[in-house]
Amino acid sequence: MTILLYDLVGSDERRPFSPHCWKTAFALAHKDLSFETVPTRFTEIAGIQEGAAKSVPVIRDGDRVVRDSFAIALYLEEAYPDRPTLFAGEGGKAMARFVERWSQLTLHPFIGEAALMDIHGMLGPADQTYFRESREARFGKALEEVPAGREAKLEGFRTSLAPLRTLFWHQPFIGGDGPLFSDYIVAGALQWARVASPFPFLAPDDPVAEWFARCLDLHDGLGRSVPAAA
Amino acid sequence: MTILLYDLVGSDERRPFSPHCWKTAFALAHKDLSFETVPTRFTEIAGIQEGAAKSVPVIRDGDRVVRDSFAIALYLEEAYPDRPTLFAGEGGKAMARFVERWSQLTLHPFIGEAALMDIHGMLGPADQTYFRESREARFGKALEEVPAGREAKLEGFRTSLAPLRTLFWHQPFIGGDGPLFSDYIVAGALQWARVASPFPFLAPDDPVAEWFARCLDLHDGLGRSVPAAA
Repeated sequence: MTILLYDLVGSDERRPFSPHCWKTAFALAHKDLSFETVPTRFTEIAGIQEGAAKSVPVIRDGDRVVRDSFAIALYLEEAYPDRPTLFAGEGGKAMARFVERWSQLTLHPFIGEAALMDIHGMLGPADQTYFRESREARFGKALEEVPAGREAKLEGFRTSLAPLRTLFWHQPFIGGDGPLFSDYIVAGALQWARVASPFPFLAPDDPVAEWFARCLDLHDGLGRSVPAAA
Repeated sequence: MTILLYDLVGSDERRPFSPHCWKTAFALAHKDLSFETVPTRFTEIAGIQEGAAKSVPVIRDGDRVVRDSFAIALYLEEAYPDRPTLFAGEGGKAMARFVERWSQLTLHPFIGEAALMDIHGMLGPADQTYFRESREARFGKALEEVPAGREAKLEGFRTSLAPLRTLFWHQPFIGGDGPLFSDYIVAGALQWARVASPFPFLAPDDPVAEWFARCLDLHDGLGRSVPAAA
């Protein structure tokens, strides 16, 4: 049975943008599992599978409903052990958590701030109201003020990617010779940026950008199926 | 045959302090391999095994000489596959490199600067001359000026450990339920700080300090066999 992926979208259903949903889309493709996306708006999340989740991604696989991108990857690894591995062993599973914590604390804060108005611009009216209220409460300031100064912070952001950049001295993917879920964790964050915002988060000649391009090429160009924001 | 570990020391042979040598000592203990250390001063490195290396650690295992802490860990994993694993699979091997890059770029610069005069104070006269010349060339200033302002930078350093700190929401070690080489990579850096300097790099109630204490307890308290700098 085809797996359902509840995937965050704005007013254009063809432009899913959630970093966490992208992690899951990449993971499903990596496992060579067919899936259908259920375009889901912020204000529709509460209605997924009778209130199963407060956030996306959520997948439904037969009668199993699983939420949270990392939990979904662990579920897929267990449920489909004969498909290509997402972790390549217990060590890879443990350290993918470290990659997740690093990505969440290094990439997400800056992308989330710098792309905030771009994301707002992707949403329909009901979602814009929700988004403004929840994000203004989170940041403690007007939505429009949050991305201010992003140009000045860009160099610091790029510098903060040095652990990833220098990893590519040793290997083409975070997972080694080929991608693992850890690659999708970080690629999901950069895909969020790419789909939502034309802001140049990465310099084109950055080895991180070159690795991200390799990730976008994977699985018949799944990541490129959505054009970059212009 | 007992493995030899060429281990960096200063004027007191009982206080090895190199982060990279500690990684190797922990890795050898993890593999339950008996080893003897060869106390080696900075100015003695060039003479190891007829010029085999420009840096320590170096190990000699029978007729094999291996240098570089990561290469040594890979060697031990391959040479002693029936001993406890250092990587728990290919994914763990690949991502240990990411942990290394993160540790090298997040912990090492601040510890190396903040503890610079403390390290200098551990050395004998010939090593002090070498150390001053090489480090003053690297930093472009007098040795004494390098640690200045370390108090002001401490909060930023502690904040930068957040990916590791929040990892412990999920698991007790970087390697998961138990330690892997990735744990020794970061513990090696903190052991360097602990042995060389009384500066309080970690707040005592930091989950990172609690994890480091767990690492010091491992292998019959190998890390605690050298008292902290006072």
